[in-house]
Amino acid sequence: MTEWGGAVQSSKVDISIAGAKAGRWPAGYHYRMRIVITGGGGFLGSRLARRLLERGTLTDARGSEREIREIVLLDVAHPAAAIDDARLVCRVGDLADAATVDEAFAGGVDSVFHLAAVVSGQAEADFDIGMRINLDATRLLLERCRRLEAPPKLVFASSLAVFGGPLPDPVPDDAPLMPQASYGTQKAIGELLVYDMTRKGYIDGRSLRLPTVTVRPGKPNRAASSFASGIVREPLAGIDAECPVAPTTRMWVTSPRSVVDNIVIGHEAPAFAFAHTRSVNVPGLCVAVGEMVEALRAVAGDRVAARVHWRHDAAIDRIVSTWPANFAPQLGPALGMRGDAGFEDIVRAYIAEDMPRS
Amino acid sequence: MTEWGGAVQSSKVDISIAGAKAGRWPAGYHYRMRIVITGGGGFLGSRLARRLLERGTLTDARGSEREIREIVLLDVAHPAAAIDDARLVCRVGDLADAATVDEAFAGGVDSVFHLAAVVSGQAEADFDIGMRINLDATRLLLERCRRLEAPPKLVFASSLAVFGGPLPDPVPDDAPLMPQASYGTQKAIGELLVYDMTRKGYIDGRSLRLPTVTVRPGKPNRAASSFASGIVREPLAGIDAECPVAPTTRMWVTSPRSVVDNIVIGHEAPAFAFAHTRSVNVPGLCVAVGEMVEALRAVAGDRVAARVHWRHDAAIDRIVSTWPANFAPQLGPALGMRGDAGFEDIVRAYIAEDMPRS
Repeated sequence: MTEWGGAVQSSKVDISIAGAKAGRWPAGYHYRMRIVITGGGGFLGSRLARRLLERGTLTDARGSEREIREIVLLDVAHPAAAIDDARLVCRVGDLADAATVDEAFAGGVDSVFHLAAVVSGQAEADFDIGMRINLDATRLLLERCRRLEAPPKLVFASSLAVFGGPLPDPVPDDAPLMPQASYGTQKAIGELLVYDMTRKGYIDGRSLRLPTVTVRPGKPNRAASSFASGIVREPLAGIDAECPVAPTTRMWVTSPRSVVDNIVIGHEAPAFAFAHTRSVNVPGLCVAVGEMVEALRAVAGDRVAARVHWRHDAAIDRIVSTWPANFAPQLGPALGMRGDAGFEDIVRAYIAEDMPRS
Repeated sequence: MTEWGGAVQSSKVDISIAGAKAGRWPAGYHYRMRIVITGGGGFLGSRLARRLLERGTLTDARGSEREIREIVLLDVAHPAAAIDDARLVCRVGDLADAATVDEAFAGGVDSVFHLAAVVSGQAEADFDIGMRINLDATRLLLERCRRLEAPPKLVFASSLAVFGGPLPDPVPDDAPLMPQASYGTQKAIGELLVYDMTRKGYIDGRSLRLPTVTVRPGKPNRAASSFASGIVREPLAGIDAECPVAPTTRMWVTSPRSVVDNIVIGHEAPAFAFAHTRSVNVPGLCVAVGEMVEALRAVAGDRVAARVHWRHDAAIDRIVSTWPANFAPQLGPALGMRGDAGFEDIVRAYIAEDMPRS
């Protein structure tokens, strides 16, 4: 709590930052933050919500730490385990539908975490669906933010897939945007819009280029990188898993825990930490897929690791092989972001935190 | 004329490349190309049309040189002097209106030159108009191209305004997209769409990052770079001109003649000349604004040059100063593109070719 901290104790009036920043409320009133998480029904979204509820506060666009009043999880479905917290609201709807977004924004919004996306494999297989959600819905959301009384903070989940073509190894922060598939193209466009609308003062945006998140619990999805979770998750569950790329294929990965930490850090970073872009290469771990399986072997034994079978899939390999696998992030670590120490730790964390108990 | 060359002489049947490429027409039939130029009512568009009519042929997406059957100039207005040629059709309409585009595309299209845009100063002053024309209309056009029977060639007029922030001097071809104003943002997004849709096989696109074109005849427009023509054009017409940036401000400029040459070269370049991007930094000339006035003095004398007055405009200076002014293009020259030798030549060419006779 900073400048208006005292009022939190004495006032029962609960107003949004929008009204406060527009000067419509007398000084001394406090407000608590209202947050929207798109893709909030997914694994990462619900995990982020849990983290925010534990924290209890976030820093608003004015730089003041504020209590969290409400978190709206907006998604097409809410399969993740319900979190029992009075501050949490689940809303179901299509993000490309203006009415859905309007409904979630009713009551004001101080911060948005835009995680919803059509994943890489699906965006490549169905160009129109990718454009509709990854581009049109993103734009709709940004335009809705612009209509708030005061510019909200907005964290956009971008991806290392915005990069491609010939690149230095490791990839520096100022590497050119050169996506080689539709998913990365749509994410790159989102980044450009987030920066321009931030520059215009419509939002206070940050685009975080996330590494591949592994190990994700649950089912495989249509992300080209889905196997990076599957080759650990399925063998640990006693199920055979197919790996569609060569063991030598390197990837830039992050644990769910680290990436949620880094998403929160990206939100909390002060605006003055950025210069000519709002995009951040989020720290990760460079690991070959064969090393991932060896880490699984070291943690869970030969019998588990033997459940991984190598079966090349040209469509997946083509997408994954365009993604750079090794970065030298500067801005992210300067903001306090951290990658994981090693893949064995990632496997152990999955077993401890996310693996279903049988 | 290449593979089907003989048929041009013997056949009266005139069909579009779309039908020919889709295999709907027996071998031996010839077709002649139908071309759409958006922004075709403008100075550059009508000058390009004149050049194409003089050439008489273009290379189609299959690599065959074809006769030009029809050029459609599509624009909101057609103020440029009419060109008397039976192959030319002028259409008036809003490019963001699907019916306008459909009408221009009726009859098939083999090549598109997409020059229409809301210029930089206006796109910065009115975010929504810029987004509507520079982004939405571009996307509509690309989607319309995708619905043709065969992918057309498409030349997208991009801009050096896609660059900004800290950059090497000179700027290499692989400098990162980092626009610092809405116009450049919208052009960068257009480039990303052109490349992705080319990669998907929907079009055969090329994005040409044009230098500032000077000397443009006619009236000032709302481009932030409008003064770069005005400080030559107005003094030569006996009118005082204001220069809103410092004499030391450097710009990357091109004559109308060179840029039309380079646009045609960009169209003619074979698809295999490109790798992980379809964007080309078009050659230009690096010149300080003070040197432009000195070139005017050398060509037209002190009395003319004295009509330039230095009057700083912060809004214009802010946009122009984010644009890099010196490039080291590699791909463009490899394709055969050339910049101008010097600014005095540019002034002389304006006097000889474009200056109104009194």
